[in-house]
Amino acid sequence: MSADKARLQLGFIGLGRMGLNMVRRMQEAGIDCVVFDTHVEARREATSHGATAAESIQDLVAKLDAPRNVWLMLPTAVVDVVLDQLVPLLHAGDTVIDGGNSHYVEDLRRAEALNRHQVMYVDVGVSGGVWGRERGYCQMIGGPELAYKRLEPAFAALAPGVDAAPRSESRSGEPSPAEKGYLYCGLNGAGHFVKMVHNGIEYGLMAAYAEGLNVLKNANAGKQTRTADAETAPLERPELYQYDFPIGDVVELWRRGSVIGSWLLDLTAVEMARDASLKGYTGRVSDSGEGRWTAQAAIDEGVPVPVLTAALFGRFTSQGNDLYANQVMSAMRHAFGGHQEKTEGKG
Amino acid sequence: MSADKARLQLGFIGLGRMGLNMVRRMQEAGIDCVVFDTHVEARREATSHGATAAESIQDLVAKLDAPRNVWLMLPTAVVDVVLDQLVPLLHAGDTVIDGGNSHYVEDLRRAEALNRHQVMYVDVGVSGGVWGRERGYCQMIGGPELAYKRLEPAFAALAPGVDAAPRSESRSGEPSPAEKGYLYCGLNGAGHFVKMVHNGIEYGLMAAYAEGLNVLKNANAGKQTRTADAETAPLERPELYQYDFPIGDVVELWRRGSVIGSWLLDLTAVEMARDASLKGYTGRVSDSGEGRWTAQAAIDEGVPVPVLTAALFGRFTSQGNDLYANQVMSAMRHAFGGHQEKTEGKG
Amino acid sequence: MSADKARLQLGFIGLGRMGLNMVRRMQEAGIDCVVFDTHVEARREATSHGATAAESIQDLVAKLDAPRNVWLMLPTAVVDVVLDQLVPLLHAGDTVIDGGNSHYVEDLRRAEALNRHQVMYVDVGVSGGVWGRERGYCQMIGGPELAYKRLEPAFAALAPGVDAAPRSESRSGEPSPAEKGYLYCGLNGAGHFVKMVHNGIEYGLMAAYAEGLNVLKNANAGKQTRTADAETAPLERPELYQYDFPIGDVVELWRRGSVIGSWLLDLTAVEMARDASLKGYTGRVSDSGEGRWTAQAAIDEGVPVPVLTAALFGRFTSQGNDLYANQVMSAMRHAFGGHQEKTEGKG
Amino acid sequence: MSADKARLQLGFIGLGRMGLNMVRRMQEAGIDCVVFDTHVEARREATSHGATAAESIQDLVAKLDAPRNVWLMLPTAVVDVVLDQLVPLLHAGDTVIDGGNSHYVEDLRRAEALNRHQVMYVDVGVSGGVWGRERGYCQMIGGPELAYKRLEPAFAALAPGVDAAPRSESRSGEPSPAEKGYLYCGLNGAGHFVKMVHNGIEYGLMAAYAEGLNVLKNANAGKQTRTADAETAPLERPELYQYDFPIGDVVELWRRGSVIGSWLLDLTAVEMARDASLKGYTGRVSDSGEGRWTAQAAIDEGVPVPVLTAALFGRFTSQGNDLYANQVMSAMRHAFGGHQEKTEGKG
Repeated sequence: MSADKARLQLGFIGLGRMGLNMVRRMQEAGIDCVVFDTHVEARREATSHGATAAESIQDLVAKLDAPRNVWLMLPTAVVDVVLDQLVPLLHAGDTVIDGGNSHYVEDLRRAEALNRHQVMYVDVGVSGGVWGRERGYCQMIGGPELAYKRLEPAFAALAPGVDAAPRSESRSGEPSPAEKGYLYCGLNGAGHFVKMVHNGIEYGLMAAYAEGLNVLKNANAGKQTRTADAETAPLERPELYQYDFPIGDVVELWRRGSVIGSWLLDLTAVEMARDASLKGYTGRVSDSGEGRWTAQAAIDEGVPVPVLTAALFGRFTSQGNDLYANQVMSAMRHAFGGHQEKTEGKG
Repeated sequence: MSADKARLQLGFIGLGRMGLNMVRRMQEAGIDCVVFDTHVEARREATSHGATAAESIQDLVAKLDAPRNVWLMLPTAVVDVVLDQLVPLLHAGDTVIDGGNSHYVEDLRRAEALNRHQVMYVDVGVSGGVWGRERGYCQMIGGPELAYKRLEPAFAALAPGVDAAPRSESRSGEPSPAEKGYLYCGLNGAGHFVKMVHNGIEYGLMAAYAEGLNVLKNANAGKQTRTADAETAPLERPELYQYDFPIGDVVELWRRGSVIGSWLLDLTAVEMARDASLKGYTGRVSDSGEGRWTAQAAIDEGVPVPVLTAALFGRFTSQGNDLYANQVMSAMRHAFGGHQEKTEGKG
Repeated sequence: MSADKARLQLGFIGLGRMGLNMVRRMQEAGIDCVVFDTHVEARREATSHGATAAESIQDLVAKLDAPRNVWLMLPTAVVDVVLDQLVPLLHAGDTVIDGGNSHYVEDLRRAEALNRHQVMYVDVGVSGGVWGRERGYCQMIGGPELAYKRLEPAFAALAPGVDAAPRSESRSGEPSPAEKGYLYCGLNGAGHFVKMVHNGIEYGLMAAYAEGLNVLKNANAGKQTRTADAETAPLERPELYQYDFPIGDVVELWRRGSVIGSWLLDLTAVEMARDASLKGYTGRVSDSGEGRWTAQAAIDEGVPVPVLTAALFGRFTSQGNDLYANQVMSAMRHAFGGHQEKTEGKG
Repeated sequence: MSADKARLQLGFIGLGRMGLNMVRRMQEAGIDCVVFDTHVEARREATSHGATAAESIQDLVAKLDAPRNVWLMLPTAVVDVVLDQLVPLLHAGDTVIDGGNSHYVEDLRRAEALNRHQVMYVDVGVSGGVWGRERGYCQMIGGPELAYKRLEPAFAALAPGVDAAPRSESRSGEPSPAEKGYLYCGLNGAGHFVKMVHNGIEYGLMAAYAEGLNVLKNANAGKQTRTADAETAPLERPELYQYDFPIGDVVELWRRGSVIGSWLLDLTAVEMARDASLKGYTGRVSDSGEGRWTAQAAIDEGVPVPVLTAALFGRFTSQGNDLYANQVMSAMRHAFGGHQEKTEGKG
């Protein structure tokens, strides 16, 4: 750890599970964190890792040397509330970092507002979840290059480092930041834009695996007796669907030597090893914003994203939001064909 | 009605609601129908419209003059059973017509089998549903052209006739069969192939309306209070979603002067006028084969049909068949982010 | 025509083909139109139908009695420019109507701005295209109910009228506005919201027909010789794809007695009668905003619209916007399998 | 290597790049391979790795001890041709292994045919591509359990082995076959069924990344001048799309610490490091069967696979197969709105 890195000081607001782990990782790398959270216990835990606790946002600002750097790790809905308190306390040349899951459009608005106070704004998309403490955090960074440079030791401390994956053939010499796990992506919004798309991709990957495993799961469809009525599509060749696959083992299998190995698959294998029936899950899947924003940005750009939206809509449907559309179709079927829908299943 | 048409005689097996109405329409056009159904009352009703009832398939064949024409109007699953009984009773030069919803691939197999007996096979895709009695039946016909020609008076009798729609500008002179509502589409399978695609399109049209009306229905999303947690996507501008649309009136409105007017919309308007909330429907939508076959044929052809499959998959999902896929995604979310899915809605 | 209707006076800015036809229709119904357009000939044509031409926006305002009604029929991009000139000339109690294809979000902004001048804003989604002169215009209306009431004679004059379609069974008595072809949908934005969804549905309907006809078109896939290499998916049963369908006749056929009859199908039949190969079209399909906005609104609402987005993305792809995505996939295929893409077709 | 494994002997037909590498890997593990290929040089190369070359299929069978095991590694289209020659030469108790990319439906047919000769049939889906020599081959196996057991040393020799990935938490003790990279999936067809789904998932994963990167690529859409006409959708807020992302670095970045790291992403990073513009690729993406079969199986099962089919249809479209559908839509647009499509882009 160089002397430079040791001297970096950071205010840090928001000590949820992710925030706490990030502070811990930075403290271990010699970065001094002055932390605040409304939960006293979280502050206490941070101090046990060497951080300095502040009693309030005012106190936090007071404890920082100029130019100040304040990293926010907050739920999206709270960011503006905290900024309203924080920004009036800051001075020209200070920097605010939003490391949460903000929409990049909000970044542009905030950066402009802070700029009026001559405060720099940096948006950082952070991937890593509950695993970041151990694996490090992948960081996508947007904002003024000056602020990025000043904060680079913090990004480097949080990042997984080059050894977290084999170097790509054709990459050599001193590893670039991207190879260590952080990247300056461009002016404000760039960090959260790249993170947004990252999560959009994540939705697509998850759904691809999920759909495929569902096909395996139902490969015994030919074993089930099937009502022969006008409301049930016939299965022409039931003899082709007589398989009961060991799905947990299949997932484990694909981790080695196959084209579809991934970290998501690694995690799925662990979950499946516990109970491949996944009976504990109800089938409702939440979505949290980034998938929506990715689709909306793609539409603005005129870029087709059928896979990403299919994944997104699968979640909407799992939340029951297709109901009225289905009722409309049943009404039509009733009207033109006298069809009475069956009531098992969804009904 | 010409003398020719008056002389056509037809055996007719399968007197469900649709079959009965077809027999009635043909009798009215001067075509003699000899009918059979396992339900005595159905036979009795057909005779009240002038048809001759047969006691059995043997009896039906015996009552027909050679060359015989036997029209089957049966559930898909029963066609082969009846053919097994019927074909041995027929003679070279006779014709069997399948007017049900068979997969065209079955037509090819059956046509070949009947051909070995020198019996011709005609496949007819019939659209019209419960409305056919009144509106006439749209017929898509495949098989030997000789058989088509012989049966044309029956097709013409069943068809809506040219007056059922304004003639297309650029069409003039003696109306073609297509303009009257029946069409010789090609060799065996052609009739059911075109009907299959017709129904595939129908799925897409229905879903297009249903999705749009669902967007209208949820245009009041901004009025609902929304949990602010990590498992709920934020609605950034609730003020944009404050509408409670009179959906039944909107559907009625679109019937006149708009680009999206259609017979399906006409029917929807009637249903909506009764109860636009459609609360009587559970949200489960059946599918009956043709949508599946259309998608599978498209895939064989290498033709992209994203709209038709989206419509099809919406039905599968309404039947609950996305369950395991969703459970897989929840398991992944738990594994990488510690997410606990919410349990309202689908749960 | 009642005395009331005869007395309504309307300023009308924007005499494109649609605007001119609307003015003509209103003049015929006894509504006095004072018109302006930057093209002198358009003004001249309007006067030939009885309208009064204005030399400028100022002149138009001067020629109207208070309270004034000014209907804009302008390209989306020009609306704000004209409003900037027009609004300062108006007085409390006047009304501006935007009959173009504005995004309803713009309506909300504009309504608020005009409200500060005590000028009412009415948004009207108008469907009818080049056919409106003859068929009438389907109108979806949003804004203050007071303004709607005052303008109702104009809406009625433009609308197709109840005779444009058979009345829905269960509707009786004095026809409602919806049955005549115009509807008050709610407060500002409601009109363009409903029109936006209308167009979203239109995209889905068009794509459903187009995909189905493409499946018919390629039903001869089994006749083509097929390279047997690792880059070409095999067609397992070429004997199933030997059909050359008379697509123009099929489209004509479906107009009578089938479930999928519609006005769009009527139009397609006319086009197909000319040349069912459609060789004159290159395959590039434009989109114009409403489809995008519908999808984005659905995403905000959390409503799944897989069919509508599939239709939208099909257009994006037809514009070539899938290029980089496809290049990425080819790069992956090269990397994991040494695949060299074939160069015919798209290449 | 145990004495048992050392004694396994295998006939191997088909020495393409993949076949040769597999033979080499087995020879190194002490399995005796007797090989045949119509290309003499391929046979020669195999002998340089210790295999015994046969001059013909007859010769190959003659050189094997009973009970014989013959592994086919052939293009799909050739498998039946070779089986026609091979099977008459085999005896009761012998085994044929198909390690190619056969449709599992073919496996069922072939297994039944071979069974009449008391020859066992084993279907093995092999993933690994050009990387298998180095990484090992992931193998999904179907067929009689007896044959699987006998051949297990070969599967183990080809497999990557447990060290190819970190063991899943909760897996302990002697590694299971799945953890080593091969798995007995069930009776005949099971191996190729699982491989089919594996490839279906692969299509989905690839498209998810590709779409996301395309959104990044077009994040500069706001910089481009945009025609303001009725055929071009407006970009309402161009200031939101001003980014030129370093896409190659973003891909590299995501390899460490992010949720979407995968082997496919590793490979993409290598390709991108060479030229992130990917200009060398034309945009045409082939598909090779498994994606189609997965979708068709899902449809038979009634399982929704919107992501997998979206990925598949993207490839069809890249091959130009959406052409007629797009022409139909342009014809409709012309008919209802007088729209003339623009000709740049796809045209």
